Amino acid sequence: MGRLVSGAVADDPELELVAAVARFSAEIPGLPVRVSTDRHALVDAGARVVVDFTNPGVVMDNVRWAIEQGLDVVVGTTGIGPDDLEEIRSLVDARGGGHGVVVVPNFAIGAVLMQRFAAEASRFLPAVEIIELHHDRKMDAPSGTALATARAVVESRNQPYRGPEEESVKGSRGGDVEGVRIHSVRLPGLVAHQEVILGGPGQTLSIRHDSLDRSGFMPGVLMAIKEVVKRPGLTVGLEPLLGLEG
Amino acid sequence: MGRLVSGAVADDPELELVAAVARFSAEIPGLPVRVSTDRHALVDAGARVVVDFTNPGVVMDNVRWAIEQGLDVVVGTTGIGPDDLEEIRSLVDARGGGHGVVVVPNFAIGAVLMQRFAAEASRFLPAVEIIELHHDRKMDAPSGTALATARAVVESRNQPYRGPEEESVKGSRGGDVEGVRIHSVRLPGLVAHQEVILGGPGQTLSIRHDSLDRSGFMPGVLMAIKEVVKRPGLTVGLEPLLGLEG
Amino acid sequence: MGRLVSGAVADDPELELVAAVARFSAEIPGLPVRVSTDRHALVDAGARVVVDFTNPGVVMDNVRWAIEQGLDVVVGTTGIGPDDLEEIRSLVDARGGGHGVVVVPNFAIGAVLMQRFAAEASRFLPAVEIIELHHDRKMDAPSGTALATARAVVESRNQPYRGPEEESVKGSRGGDVEGVRIHSVRLPGLVAHQEVILGGPGQTLSIRHDSLDRSGFMPGVLMAIKEVVKRPGLTVGLEPLLGLEG
Amino acid sequence: MGRLVSGAVADDPELELVAAVARFSAEIPGLPVRVSTDRHALVDAGARVVVDFTNPGVVMDNVRWAIEQGLDVVVGTTGIGPDDLEEIRSLVDARGGGHGVVVVPNFAIGAVLMQRFAAEASRFLPAVEIIELHHDRKMDAPSGTALATARAVVESRNQPYRGPEEESVKGSRGGDVEGVRIHSVRLPGLVAHQEVILGGPGQTLSIRHDSLDRSGFMPGVLMAIKEVVKRPGLTVGLEPLLGLEG
Repeated sequence: MGRLVSGAVADDPELELVAAVARFSAEIPGLPVRVSTDRHALVDAGARVVVDFTNPGVVMDNVRWAIEQGLDVVVGTTGIGPDDLEEIRSLVDARGGGHGVVVVPNFAIGAVLMQRFAAEASRFLPAVEIIELHHDRKMDAPSGTALATARAVVESRNQPYRGPEEESVKGSRGGDVEGVRIHSVRLPGLVAHQEVILGGPGQTLSIRHDSLDRSGFMPGVLMAIKEVVKRPGLTVGLEPLLGLEG
Repeated sequence: MGRLVSGAVADDPELELVAAVARFSAEIPGLPVRVSTDRHALVDAGARVVVDFTNPGVVMDNVRWAIEQGLDVVVGTTGIGPDDLEEIRSLVDARGGGHGVVVVPNFAIGAVLMQRFAAEASRFLPAVEIIELHHDRKMDAPSGTALATARAVVESRNQPYRGPEEESVKGSRGGDVEGVRIHSVRLPGLVAHQEVILGGPGQTLSIRHDSLDRSGFMPGVLMAIKEVVKRPGLTVGLEPLLGLEG
Repeated sequence: MGRLVSGAVADDPELELVAAVARFSAEIPGLPVRVSTDRHALVDAGARVVVDFTNPGVVMDNVRWAIEQGLDVVVGTTGIGPDDLEEIRSLVDARGGGHGVVVVPNFAIGAVLMQRFAAEASRFLPAVEIIELHHDRKMDAPSGTALATARAVVESRNQPYRGPEEESVKGSRGGDVEGVRIHSVRLPGLVAHQEVILGGPGQTLSIRHDSLDRSGFMPGVLMAIKEVVKRPGLTVGLEPLLGLEG
Repeated sequence: MGRLVSGAVADDPELELVAAVARFSAEIPGLPVRVSTDRHALVDAGARVVVDFTNPGVVMDNVRWAIEQGLDVVVGTTGIGPDDLEEIRSLVDARGGGHGVVVVPNFAIGAVLMQRFAAEASRFLPAVEIIELHHDRKMDAPSGTALATARAVVESRNQPYRGPEEESVKGSRGGDVEGVRIHSVRLPGLVAHQEVILGGPGQTLSIRHDSLDRSGFMPGVLMAIKEVVKRPGLTVGLEPLLGLEG
């Protein structure tokens, strides 16, 4: 992911890649900078924004350090909980001076739109089921996106809904999240897909996202980099950057 | 359609069916009123709202008459053009007194949402194609909904888009509406379906509406009847009734 | 179903409707015969083939009677078990003379093909999951067709297959039939649909059947009527009539 | 493709990679042999089977040479026409001794099954349309697979079929191949997909193949290598290797 983001930044005419940091130092063909193992390379190179795709164990230490250094920060690392968000908000507000942090759990614009549209439509079509389909190396089920979509639907719809629950083979009606059934398919040859089906009398509305590879995240990452410098304080999720209120 | 709407109104606890008008007088099992051939039956019965599902040749005459009679009007008949809308607006405004007319080209909530979501998503994913699938007795192609969706996408997206245009078999790339390709499938066994596919690097977002029969229109019709009495002047489309701005 | 079959027979240029039997006597508009309550009306009218769409409680008595009367029989009623099939085989063989009985659990040609193709493909792509989607008034899950498809896949594939089983929400991985996961979706606006997805490295193959209404059964019923007179003895399923061996 | 096939052969426990030939000599990490630029390296290394993924300009010269050398040959290169097949058949038959050549236009097992199932089903459901969807860098339309599928359907169905032809936007009804309409979608985010929809009264049957990347070809390539040594003479297509007659 680091290499992909570095390349995307280097290729963007509005951005400049001034430093790259990883666990191993390296010369990457096509990248204008040498990858360093020391995060101070970012400060030395005069970076304005730092993008963190590391891991849950180190991300908060990186964010604290970056805020202290006066860098704007885009966080794509998973595992940022509500307490972490609270801490980030305090740190960035305490520093003042208009610095920004953007934390994005999902950079795929299509997935964000799917979730939003599903929630909006469930106000009118409260009967909703989710089918998520992933490759057979994904060991957990349901996916995080499916759970987040189900919760968004439950919050948005004005009336509760429960479909039929009878099953002669245990599990065939899927997993239940407050009346939203989730069905997790795992097969070789799949990548990452989700379909939300909303039903009403005489009609269904289906919203589906198919993700091919991580290149689908790059437009979201580049947008976050360009936006964080204009947004003091903490921003969570891609929606506000997309101009989608709520 | 008239029978279906009459039944839906009769069954709704918030509404009362006081009269029904058609070309032929009839006693319909399950309907609390006898179908009359004279539209004055509506006035005699003390109707507050009249719903028009007639045909393009007579609808405007009906609307003029209903406004004159001080009735609120819901129009589901097709063929209302921009000039007709202008005339209705003048008539209803001239009458004052808070009377309302709601003109709805498509009562299927799912279809309205599909069109709206497609337009919204095309701001971020400007490459869009439409596949619409209908039974083989539908003789025109593309469908009105497909054309309306294409126009909504063209207006919404910030940047024009053109996909590849080369074809070795004429027509295989579909019909072109300002860069939005429309593909019309006609097969027995289909009813009325439309899928809008939006593509970006590494991902696609698909929004699909499947319509089973005209029962899918009833929730929209009932909503329009309940809303028209609260909305003086002319209202066009289901969106404002759904609380969807734009 | 009886009315639908009677109409289809009456409309077929190769067939003639000579009698119709139901629980209530009736004159049906469009049918050339009056519906009788007495099955002997079939014999009196000189019927050659009788079609039984009754119910599990009476079907076997009807079949015994029809064989005794020397009628060829098409059975579309559900609930015919292996013992019943054995009895029918004995009866029809004992009678000799080339009489035939065709028992068909599913008259939808598309569903029969889906099942057959899924089984055939699973020899090469052994990783299979089934998604079946029905209206929310269907109270049992999974559907009979889904269970039959799963069993056909299990029998056909040369190697067993098990996908990931971990789930954080119980039931999300679906119902398990010997390694074939079945996911049952129940929503208003759906009719009767099933998709079989087979996955292998880098590819998936999906086979989907969408059933709109019982009119989809008529071609299968008419074919069974025309074939039963040429097939002495017991024939089970639409496959042999379609010329599909196995 | 050469690298992918070499790796797959090297990884297969039943096969041994003894030589690899390309336009440029190279040492490939993970491959047990050095890539040579001279095809005689295959003979020197004692190869039994040679796999050709080159290009239409050189493939026939390679095949002639390999037959002369007594090698069995698997050809995956495109552009082998009917005259080429005739020549290969003569050469291999003339040589006698049980040598074999397998020419495979499409190594994706799922695509081969899709085509076969579509043709088989069209005997019962003659109304067929094809939607093929590819990334926006594919410049020709329709795809070769779509054209081959259409031709297979036309040959297989017992009765001709033509759907509605009226269009208000030119091209919306797709490209026409003897009554089979082909719709070619081109969007970023897609890879290579095809759906064949067959319709009949009250039902549709859809067969869809999704291809993720060329790894989906490897099982077919490995099967062809293992089978060619058992099949003297010319074999065309994956079907006979899969045990699918016709």
